[in-house]
Amino acid sequence: MSIDLIGLDGDDTLWHSESLFALTNDAIVELLSPHVDAQTLDERLLDTERKNLALFGYGAKAFTLSVIETAIEVSQGRVTTAEIQAIIDLGKALLAHPVELLDGVADAIGSLADHRLVLVTKGDLFHQESKIAGSGLGEHFASIEIVSEKDTTTYRRVLDDLGVSPDRFLMVGNSLRSDVEPVVAIGGRAVHVPYEHQWALDSEPDGELPGEGDGWWHLDSLEELPELVAKLD
Amino acid sequence: MSIDLIGLDGDDTLWHSESLFALTNDAIVELLSPHVDAQTLDERLLDTERKNLALFGYGAKAFTLSVIETAIEVSQGRVTTAEIQAIIDLGKALLAHPVELLDGVADAIGSLADHRLVLVTKGDLFHQESKIAGSGLGEHFASIEIVSEKDTTTYRRVLDDLGVSPDRFLMVGNSLRSDVEPVVAIGGRAVHVPYEHQWALDSEPDGELPGEGDGWWHLDSLEELPELVAKLD
Repeated sequence: MSIDLIGLDGDDTLWHSESLFALTNDAIVELLSPHVDAQTLDERLLDTERKNLALFGYGAKAFTLSVIETAIEVSQGRVTTAEIQAIIDLGKALLAHPVELLDGVADAIGSLADHRLVLVTKGDLFHQESKIAGSGLGEHFASIEIVSEKDTTTYRRVLDDLGVSPDRFLMVGNSLRSDVEPVVAIGGRAVHVPYEHQWALDSEPDGELPGEGDGWWHLDSLEELPELVAKLD
Repeated sequence: MSIDLIGLDGDDTLWHSESLFALTNDAIVELLSPHVDAQTLDERLLDTERKNLALFGYGAKAFTLSVIETAIEVSQGRVTTAEIQAIIDLGKALLAHPVELLDGVADAIGSLADHRLVLVTKGDLFHQESKIAGSGLGEHFASIEIVSEKDTTTYRRVLDDLGVSPDRFLMVGNSLRSDVEPVVAIGGRAVHVPYEHQWALDSEPDGELPGEGDGWWHLDSLEELPELVAKLD
């Protein structure tokens, strides 16, 4: 079945994101080391992020607020206001960080110019728009979909809006849970391109995913995508 | 010229928003009264919000982070971590607050059922989606557009996506700057329905707005909208 539409994820598929969060996390561990050890901080931060997810959603502002809450909690209120301001400044640095494309992405996207492309990215609307602008890739996409959750409902809505049947759609991204499982579940195809870091709250698929090769494929790098697309098409 | 598409703003047009921020603001003034008087706090908070706008965008998470920064600054670092946690809790309460429709909104939207409606709302993607779900109005809209800024580029893109010419579009909202001026500027028509509170950073139009009656009209309540639409159509 030919491919009429290729969906691409943004964070950690086209450009680096989680590695910046990891660096920020290291800076926070260092900043809060007078109050808490690294392992406890990581565990409690993940707890706080999980609790806040339904209210805050994803993104750097949500992360910053969860770090402040965790810092107050783990220090039993002893974190200083200078440290809290430093946390806010780290959050701002995340938001202001220039976009860095992953290796080979610009060439791979260029090679797919004969296909209709859609960017399907999750997170904070304002920050995602600024990252898309900073990536210089915006013009390659027929449509840009910034969504709050990547589930079967979202993919069905996007394909419906664009008038594409799921069996003509190929989604490409670094998350089995967000980019592969829901797409395969609605009868689409998917490509998993893992990233060096994966956020604990967006890693494992929720339900049943068929084995690799059964509707989805694994690639080590986006550079290999044009070849796979040519094969599938 | 008949109207093929009616755009409606969300916050402070369909449901209350700024009044909740005002109540939250009162609670913050009270909370921080050991450190700062109300007027100074309001001025400094507005300064901080203005400085953070390009990085944070709009919404309750951006507001909460700006309040924390301002509290640290105006108290010269003496704000307590218990007070900072109380600020975060006020931000969470804003995000969790049930949606309250403005008077007459449900009836007005019902009366416009023979028109194609689009919701064009600005702010945090995650929070706006949860407010739309909570409003119970989602099914009335042919399309929902959550945007980061309401300028001429945004309106042109939305009308393009929906295949509607600007002269067949009527936008309805509480902000001259966001709902009226850019729409009139691209050749559309607009209706201004002021809200009891208006955020200082989203009130006055940026440039030249023609006089009322020249492409845009004023109404005291959304209840009067179906009558105006019938006249214009």
